[in-house]
Amino acid sequence: MIIQEKIIDFLKKKQAYISGDAMSERLGISRQALWKHIQELKDKGYDIVAVPHLGYRLISSPDRLFAFEIKRALRTKFLGSQVHYFEELGSTMNVAMQLGVQGAGEGTLVVAESQRKGRGRLSREWFSPKYKGIYASLILRPKILPLQASILTLLTAIGICEAVKAICGLEPRIKWPNDILMRDKKLGGILTELNAEMDRIKFVVIGIGLNVNNEKKSLTEGATSLKAENKEELSRVGLLQEILLKIEENYSVFQKKGATPIIEKWRQYSVTLGRRVKVHYQKDYVEGQAVDIDSDGGLLIRTDSGTMEKVMAGDVVHCR
Amino acid sequence: MIIQEKIIDFLKKKQAYISGDAMSERLGISRQALWKHIQELKDKGYDIVAVPHLGYRLISSPDRLFAFEIKRALRTKFLGSQVHYFEELGSTMNVAMQLGVQGAGEGTLVVAESQRKGRGRLSREWFSPKYKGIYASLILRPKILPLQASILTLLTAIGICEAVKAICGLEPRIKWPNDILMRDKKLGGILTELNAEMDRIKFVVIGIGLNVNNEKKSLTEGATSLKAENKEELSRVGLLQEILLKIEENYSVFQKKGATPIIEKWRQYSVTLGRRVKVHYQKDYVEGQAVDIDSDGGLLIRTDSGTMEKVMAGDVVHCR
Repeated sequence: MIIQEKIIDFLKKKQAYISGDAMSERLGISRQALWKHIQELKDKGYDIVAVPHLGYRLISSPDRLFAFEIKRALRTKFLGSQVHYFEELGSTMNVAMQLGVQGAGEGTLVVAESQRKGRGRLSREWFSPKYKGIYASLILRPKILPLQASILTLLTAIGICEAVKAICGLEPRIKWPNDILMRDKKLGGILTELNAEMDRIKFVVIGIGLNVNNEKKSLTEGATSLKAENKEELSRVGLLQEILLKIEENYSVFQKKGATPIIEKWRQYSVTLGRRVKVHYQKDYVEGQAVDIDSDGGLLIRTDSGTMEKVMAGDVVHCR
Repeated sequence: MIIQEKIIDFLKKKQAYISGDAMSERLGISRQALWKHIQELKDKGYDIVAVPHLGYRLISSPDRLFAFEIKRALRTKFLGSQVHYFEELGSTMNVAMQLGVQGAGEGTLVVAESQRKGRGRLSREWFSPKYKGIYASLILRPKILPLQASILTLLTAIGICEAVKAICGLEPRIKWPNDILMRDKKLGGILTELNAEMDRIKFVVIGIGLNVNNEKKSLTEGATSLKAENKEELSRVGLLQEILLKIEENYSVFQKKGATPIIEKWRQYSVTLGRRVKVHYQKDYVEGQAVDIDSDGGLLIRTDSGTMEKVMAGDVVHCR
């Protein structure tokens, strides 16, 4: 792919025709080899025209999450420093988990155009149609206790909300613990899995599932997509880059200043706090007023009998 | 290996000469093929003699942790139901973690004759010389909260102590959280790593490192082995089978009756409770009297100022 990355890089920078001779010389390959790479790039969706005596020109790029497209113009310091791209795979979570066990560095990103077994919390299915959404898993290696990993879910949710607003003006909200909503419909979700010893996180995998260019008619009643909300097709590459940037900013705040500023920000995006909720947790449930988030990211609920209960995860139903 | 497993099985059951003709017929292979398998088994350390007109006879088996040797006469219900054997590998932990991510079932066991990067808590090295110790990792899938995983460390430690006593009469003791001691020297250790969502364990890998047939002179000052203590070479296969059985028994008690009976048993093996300890935990330490273990497996320490502190893991120094 490296030669092809360079070709796209030349064409994108030039924004005009480049002669085949000039390009083959700079790449150190024959005209014939160049032509073959151009054909392969066309097969990948790059619209490249060839005009005699002028050479090649890039008309448009496909909205594919190719590693080099994500890394091009990425403004993060370390998130996405390594990108593993898959046209299709079982689940980005499993691949990222395996990479983590093998020692993959902080910021390693796994993306897929579609997933056969995309999953959410408690192994529930996450519908992952091809080229429509962002299905990505990030490896982080924070020096925190296993219990504090929930804060990573919160800050990822904030990052997604901030990025969506920056890219298309929409203002999603967060339903505790891990749902991203637009008008009370599910736009996306976050899945936090950890690999840990008892007193130390070895690494965390943060999964992101986001409905981007899904057509309204393809979505179930309770789901939505950015396109369904905004009537516009979005560049998934650009959105993912912005998401990575915003997550990194919030992660950096968390590492420098702890959970407090994250929780303060999170409160503003929450649709859960202040509501009456019923949280199904393990085989039990807690019902009452969602009062606040504590420093571990747990939800504090004031029950009708006046006691305060804390839940670390669960299925939340907003009552009334 | 399946043919060779059958050959060993025949020879072990017969305990006498079996004619080559009879064996090749039962295996459905040629005399020539049988001869080749016998040579390979000899290379693996099986002492098999061939006498004209009598046939083959097994004189002795090597003390190797081959999957079929472990599974032969194993008395567990599910621990060791799948065994992945390695002559040498980096770390049984990493392989088991990867198998777990891929969905390996409860009771899956990874064993190695030696490890290049055997490790203990906090990535510390675990010296794993070839054919001398037991280096094994077990996959468990208990339906418990991530916080409760410490109980699995406790019950594994109990299982090891019980098995050692049953096999050779020695009575090891447990130093919280994860060391197995003989006369205050380190005989073995347990490493518990988990793969979890915030409110659910997906699977746990329990690592066991145990010095068995190490020569006294090969051990450092603070370490010991069963052979160094007992002057006798032990069958690692037999010991590992007994360890699996005892862990399974204690795991079953935990699943049926919860942590209480495990903690009660654990107290009897502890060399930590009642002692003055200094526990280095994260970047801090707690010093005081080790009073008890709580229902999550955490160590309760009464400090000199009279407050009770709980630590979930850490480096314990027994003072005085």
